[in-house]
Amino acid sequence: MDVQFIEDLASSAPTPGGGGACACVGVLASALASMVGNLTVGKAAYAQVEADVYVVLEKLAALRGRLLELVDEDARAFAPLAAAYKMPKATDAERAAKNAALQEALVGACDVPYEIMETVGRVVRHIDFLAANGSRMALSDVGAAAAFARAAADGASLNIFINAASLDDEAQAQRYRDAAEALAGRIRVKCDEIFASVKDQVA
Amino acid sequence: MDVQFIEDLASSAPTPGGGGACACVGVLASALASMVGNLTVGKAAYAQVEADVYVVLEKLAALRGRLLELVDEDARAFAPLAAAYKMPKATDAERAAKNAALQEALVGACDVPYEIMETVGRVVRHIDFLAANGSRMALSDVGAAAAFARAAADGASLNIFINAASLDDEAQAQRYRDAAEALAGRIRVKCDEIFASVKDQVA
Repeated sequence: MDVQFIEDLASSAPTPGGGGACACVGVLASALASMVGNLTVGKAAYAQVEADVYVVLEKLAALRGRLLELVDEDARAFAPLAAAYKMPKATDAERAAKNAALQEALVGACDVPYEIMETVGRVVRHIDFLAANGSRMALSDVGAAAAFARAAADGASLNIFINAASLDDEAQAQRYRDAAEALAGRIRVKCDEIFASVKDQVA
Repeated sequence: MDVQFIEDLASSAPTPGGGGACACVGVLASALASMVGNLTVGKAAYAQVEADVYVVLEKLAALRGRLLELVDEDARAFAPLAAAYKMPKATDAERAAKNAALQEALVGACDVPYEIMETVGRVVRHIDFLAANGSRMALSDVGAAAAFARAAADGASLNIFINAASLDDEAQAQRYRDAAEALAGRIRVKCDEIFASVKDQVA
């Protein structure tokens, strides 16, 4: 474990923040899913799905790389927001400048967690494939990966909600809220379905 | 992010495995909760709870340290289990030796994830306190921390279920299953309550 990242997250420093932490949990979901894939290939019992699992492994590695980039992108999107919140607001001119900076920063602070959710949603499709076709020895791991993915998406959605709430453009705020709610809901349903199926088989 | 840990997790190597990944997600939950605490102390608006939040920050740091140890303990508990699964079973003597090694290793492979769940449960109590008393600016982070803790506990419970299923002592297996089910249920209810309350306030 990278203790420095953990300590930076735990501190009051503006970055890494909650969005980056969600991307990290998504990374762990995809890594655990890859472990299941790697325990499936090369086994006679799973020869029929081996070619498909190799494709899944490549896709999971790419999604994991993207989520690691999104940890940094979330930090880059959050830094100007934290800076804007600290701008003075004593005069009308200061308040106007502060709000302009805030409004611009809020868009990035909604877009990055939404992309984290979309990337996690793609990871979930591969977790779903592995739950049905991967090594039975690693069933608990595929269920844990689904639980992680659900948490990553749910957590990222809260970042969108809280940032959208400060947008002046109410129509834009509602679009962000609706999109985050719908995507989080779809991911939650699928992950709960995978988790329940795994639990039925192992418990 | 510690890319080496992630790559080791993604590989087919026996450790780190699913239990260690759950402990990591618990570490991220506690770090995010600490961030909320660190954003609360030193602010005039939260002076009344400051002393309590400092206590919570100390406890969260200790629990995070324990969860990091549990990542390693899970690996140490899993290694003999993976070794036992690979033992030969061609003769009666080999089968008996293999099963004896398995039965011994399975106990550790149930005990460590259970301790991960218990430690995550303690983290949740502090997340709950921060949801009610921490900085409103960091509400989304306290909700994400609750989502992570739920996933860590749910994932660890699957490791207990799958290992308990291979225990010869059915009464012992049932005790593990019952304990894991009950604790996961309590953590899930509390985390869902925190998450829903946060979402109501930010959405």
